[in-house]
Amino acid sequence: MSHHVAILGASGYTGAELVRLIATHPTIEIAALSADRKAGRPMSEVFPHLRHLDLPDLCRIEEIDFSRVDLAFCALPHATSQEVIAALPADLKVVDLSADFRLRDPAAYETWYGKPHAAPELQKEAVYGLTEFYREDIEGARLVAGTGCNAAAGQFALRPVIAAGVIDLDRIVVNLTAGVSGAGRSLKEHLLHAELSEGWQGYALGGTHRHLGEFDQEFSAIAGRPVRIEFTPTLIPGNRGILVAAHVEGDAAACHAALSAAYEDEPFLHVLPLGEAPSTHHVRGSNHCHVGVVADRQAGRAVIVSALDNLTKGSSGQALQNANLMLGEEETAGLCMAPLFP
Amino acid sequence: MSHHVAILGASGYTGAELVRLIATHPTIEIAALSADRKAGRPMSEVFPHLRHLDLPDLCRIEEIDFSRVDLAFCALPHATSQEVIAALPADLKVVDLSADFRLRDPAAYETWYGKPHAAPELQKEAVYGLTEFYREDIEGARLVAGTGCNAAAGQFALRPVIAAGVIDLDRIVVNLTAGVSGAGRSLKEHLLHAELSEGWQGYALGGTHRHLGEFDQEFSAIAGRPVRIEFTPTLIPGNRGILVAAHVEGDAAACHAALSAAYEDEPFLHVLPLGEAPSTHHVRGSNHCHVGVVADRQAGRAVIVSALDNLTKGSSGQALQNANLMLGEEETAGLCMAPLFP
Amino acid sequence: MSHHVAILGASGYTGAELVRLIATHPTIEIAALSADRKAGRPMSEVFPHLRHLDLPDLCRIEEIDFSRVDLAFCALPHATSQEVIAALPADLKVVDLSADFRLRDPAAYETWYGKPHAAPELQKEAVYGLTEFYREDIEGARLVAGTGCNAAAGQFALRPVIAAGVIDLDRIVVNLTAGVSGAGRSLKEHLLHAELSEGWQGYALGGTHRHLGEFDQEFSAIAGRPVRIEFTPTLIPGNRGILVAAHVEGDAAACHAALSAAYEDEPFLHVLPLGEAPSTHHVRGSNHCHVGVVADRQAGRAVIVSALDNLTKGSSGQALQNANLMLGEEETAGLCMAPLFP
Amino acid sequence: MSHHVAILGASGYTGAELVRLIATHPTIEIAALSADRKAGRPMSEVFPHLRHLDLPDLCRIEEIDFSRVDLAFCALPHATSQEVIAALPADLKVVDLSADFRLRDPAAYETWYGKPHAAPELQKEAVYGLTEFYREDIEGARLVAGTGCNAAAGQFALRPVIAAGVIDLDRIVVNLTAGVSGAGRSLKEHLLHAELSEGWQGYALGGTHRHLGEFDQEFSAIAGRPVRIEFTPTLIPGNRGILVAAHVEGDAAACHAALSAAYEDEPFLHVLPLGEAPSTHHVRGSNHCHVGVVADRQAGRAVIVSALDNLTKGSSGQALQNANLMLGEEETAGLCMAPLFP
Repeated sequence: MSHHVAILGASGYTGAELVRLIATHPTIEIAALSADRKAGRPMSEVFPHLRHLDLPDLCRIEEIDFSRVDLAFCALPHATSQEVIAALPADLKVVDLSADFRLRDPAAYETWYGKPHAAPELQKEAVYGLTEFYREDIEGARLVAGTGCNAAAGQFALRPVIAAGVIDLDRIVVNLTAGVSGAGRSLKEHLLHAELSEGWQGYALGGTHRHLGEFDQEFSAIAGRPVRIEFTPTLIPGNRGILVAAHVEGDAAACHAALSAAYEDEPFLHVLPLGEAPSTHHVRGSNHCHVGVVADRQAGRAVIVSALDNLTKGSSGQALQNANLMLGEEETAGLCMAPLFP
Repeated sequence: MSHHVAILGASGYTGAELVRLIATHPTIEIAALSADRKAGRPMSEVFPHLRHLDLPDLCRIEEIDFSRVDLAFCALPHATSQEVIAALPADLKVVDLSADFRLRDPAAYETWYGKPHAAPELQKEAVYGLTEFYREDIEGARLVAGTGCNAAAGQFALRPVIAAGVIDLDRIVVNLTAGVSGAGRSLKEHLLHAELSEGWQGYALGGTHRHLGEFDQEFSAIAGRPVRIEFTPTLIPGNRGILVAAHVEGDAAACHAALSAAYEDEPFLHVLPLGEAPSTHHVRGSNHCHVGVVADRQAGRAVIVSALDNLTKGSSGQALQNANLMLGEEETAGLCMAPLFP
Repeated sequence: MSHHVAILGASGYTGAELVRLIATHPTIEIAALSADRKAGRPMSEVFPHLRHLDLPDLCRIEEIDFSRVDLAFCALPHATSQEVIAALPADLKVVDLSADFRLRDPAAYETWYGKPHAAPELQKEAVYGLTEFYREDIEGARLVAGTGCNAAAGQFALRPVIAAGVIDLDRIVVNLTAGVSGAGRSLKEHLLHAELSEGWQGYALGGTHRHLGEFDQEFSAIAGRPVRIEFTPTLIPGNRGILVAAHVEGDAAACHAALSAAYEDEPFLHVLPLGEAPSTHHVRGSNHCHVGVVADRQAGRAVIVSALDNLTKGSSGQALQNANLMLGEEETAGLCMAPLFP
Repeated sequence: MSHHVAILGASGYTGAELVRLIATHPTIEIAALSADRKAGRPMSEVFPHLRHLDLPDLCRIEEIDFSRVDLAFCALPHATSQEVIAALPADLKVVDLSADFRLRDPAAYETWYGKPHAAPELQKEAVYGLTEFYREDIEGARLVAGTGCNAAAGQFALRPVIAAGVIDLDRIVVNLTAGVSGAGRSLKEHLLHAELSEGWQGYALGGTHRHLGEFDQEFSAIAGRPVRIEFTPTLIPGNRGILVAAHVEGDAAACHAALSAAYEDEPFLHVLPLGEAPSTHHVRGSNHCHVGVVADRQAGRAVIVSALDNLTKGSSGQALQNANLMLGEEETAGLCMAPLFP
């Protein structure tokens, strides 16, 4: 049995990554690819690396016959997404990759995104798409909200240790280094090769990064009390990868035990031996996330490090993993490729 | 039905790339991985990006029970390879990724590699592994010699136009830009990040690159007369990729027609529309090769451009493609992943 | 005695590079910096790496008091430049970095740039700014036209051997690899880090690159007959650098002798020993150009390789060198910094 | 008046960087360059980017006539340095770039470097070379110990705020991202381009980085009580640059005021407006250090960010700045070049 999917907003990096993954999926086929401003053009013109595939041309959303579509991936920009999804058939399964349905609280959404939500009913319905922690909800969901890529990486490092109660919740300092593809295919000066290669810098410093909304929501829910982490992202001259270094006050062995127990049966989450730390090199292009714990020289302190590929496990891979669950497919289907190294 | 393979010399880049590809192969399993100096260590320690796979530990070749192996990939250094292969069971199928069996003429071997061949009988037996042009021989071969990665890229650009007689054989100037992984995992100063990134330079200039031995052998055989190209490689600050720019005297449309006809049914060779040229960006991590032809402003001249990933189509992907043929598997099995972009 | 200069179009890379160079010039001071769209902003906001300098704010050209300016560098886009320069005081010395005054023949200009020249009188007056070959004319010039960066690199490799009559003028194949800063600070998709790093491709293939107009003009003038080279540029994932590989039919030693004789007394042009080839690594950030000659394995053929930094010797360094001559300063003033390596 | 210097260990990156800087110094000349294993070779062979300079050939230390040398830069490996310096003329001024004389306490040295110090008398004599904070001692010193590059970057961010008493000394978490040239010209697998580009990872995690010895020594001395920071370095795929993100508990404005006051008259230390953070892009190749402070969303917390070039301000630039002071030269001589961008 096979399923048919549409990718809305297929001209961006997450759209192209979905195509790359689905191209090797045994039972999912791509029925439609939309990209309003590039409608009518072949996908191979917009992404020549997909030239060898037999893909439908890019079209406008209105041209898609959704009666033949089992699930839609929505890889549109923030704000656009909520309007488009509200207009889709009410029974169509949807995996949204934007930020629009990540925050359950309308007030929190407005705080972080600067305007009221346009589809509050959908917001209530949406399931937060961090697969390993919302698996059962996702299986039964109609609308799943893909997480922020940084938010995913940070949660993989911290959720189990918060849940286990082994760290000081008021002293969590998260440093994150991120490759540039997370910024999308957007024409901004600081994303030019000449401006980015051979240098690096912080961004969204001081607690202004929107993924903090997700951290606040999720960590507070786990802890049953408000948790506010300190969060400092740095933009790195590399294309794919997120590396989280979460500095915590707590026992390293206890942290390691909590993570190991939580991820024991997970196909994509791998805890390294205590004292080892992961590298983004070793997850590039894959759906795997590596997590490590290193004790600090000062007793009672540790750093928890996680590494994933922002376009795969951080967005499109997660989206496909969720789609597999929603469609009753094997959860890992299309996601078993090894990382590309070197 | 499934086959079992051994990878000899698994601690280098081509060995790791073979593992990456075979990891998604439906019917081939890895029975043994050898690496003499790292014997006893788990593969995940040498290549942590393969951590998620269930692989045998690295061992010494002598430890391998070849009675349970259907085919051995030999990813050892040049010169070592011929000695190792000569000592393997005489009926074991072998795909060699070194330079040892590429040249059929013992004198040519000695000229380019500086010493007599140690296994001249095997040299006679070996089939040149450029799949698309030696497919039938490879299907029946016991020993297949993987081509040079540059040699593969250059031949994909030029073989059909030489065969078609549409270019001047005495005026072929090939410029080639190559990523650094082709130099292997070797500790050389000019391969350090600090020495290579942000700069580039020629190497093996003046017709001294060993892959010229292959070009001479193959192009002369096609033409039925000696053909000596001019060949200038440049080392680029990138990891994967070879881009060939072959300047020829001949009609661009005739060149394009010859290439299009030759590759019409090939699953991995793609000829772009006349006037378009490929990019290494669009083949990274895949087994595809893109070829394009652009007419020069001067009538009767053209540039033929080909792009492939040196570790995949240029070596390990080609090796698996050949192994598939030798084992009676589907030729494209394990090789259908899309390129990784960005 | 000191001179005062204005830089028109200071918000681009060549403008910033001029500031970097002039910052260490012993006798030249920056009197004004213009950038129409960014007028009113401090230079340190547009280029924070110049934060430590005491520079005038960006202004509109109209705001500059040219009576206090001895020379203007015009780093404006092509076509804009000719209009702006035509409106400057008629006795103001000008070094133009655009393409507007490089071609002496109005018809050639129209052919390569697609429209008639707006200031044909100035076009006649302009001196071609390849310092080492037009030094005397530049000393007495009012308006000097900076050369194309690729055109400079190619001419440094080929002018002396064409002049010496030691190569076949009908068989010159020039391959050029270029870093991305030559494309300027422009928001184009293929210049994004995510689209450029880790891959490379040809551009302006088939003899369509505008710098061919300069090659045609200059090489034909030297030879006293039409010379049309074949020219294939490749865009490299690096920021600074041009590497020319000129394939010629001629004796390598004769080529080397011609180059050595021509550059014997040049402070910035260095001919390597016969058989050695330069690297862009070794000229980065400097005004030096390295040139090498390697004999091909086939007698009577050679490759001439030149390397320079496109922003320095290829544009802003050349411009300052010319300005020094025009102002009666020491020719090398402000240009003696060593390359930055690694 | 001019001074003559020798550079011992001139075949590494810090040696080459010293040559680059001194090449434009108005009054210092290079009298000798040593490199034991490369003795007899011209410097231009080891570092072709210095080809245009008229430099002495590399020699053995024993061959140097120190009676004609005013000051020696010692850019030798750790442990070697102390032996070499102990054998130099007792009145020769020395700037050491190794780690050998950074720690005043012999026990601390043994803890961090794993063996007793071989020249404890010299260790007592040595002045810690963080110019801006030890200026007067350096002026009168015979032996100055260059700081660790990471140690310099971290201290520029933190010394003034520790001295001002405006942060909690028990809650300092320093994240540092560093380019690869800090690891030197050493043949290690993880420093290869193929292993480093496009990925990043932590190193020396858990408080094991040797520069912590310097932080402990200096911060404790300032505070008058033991201070132990948490320190997490990450290796970035870039060549030059260190970016420190120091997370502190304290008032951002008070931190900013302390830094601004401390660096008000410093030629190379620049404090950005409150709320802005620096980038390594903007200091590359220069002796400048940019420092910024950003308040966290949580009151009473802030991040202090500093950026410098590890080879310039972090080592060779600092060394020349100190040498200038020791020789009575202008402190900024040879150090006024602007950063290279892009």
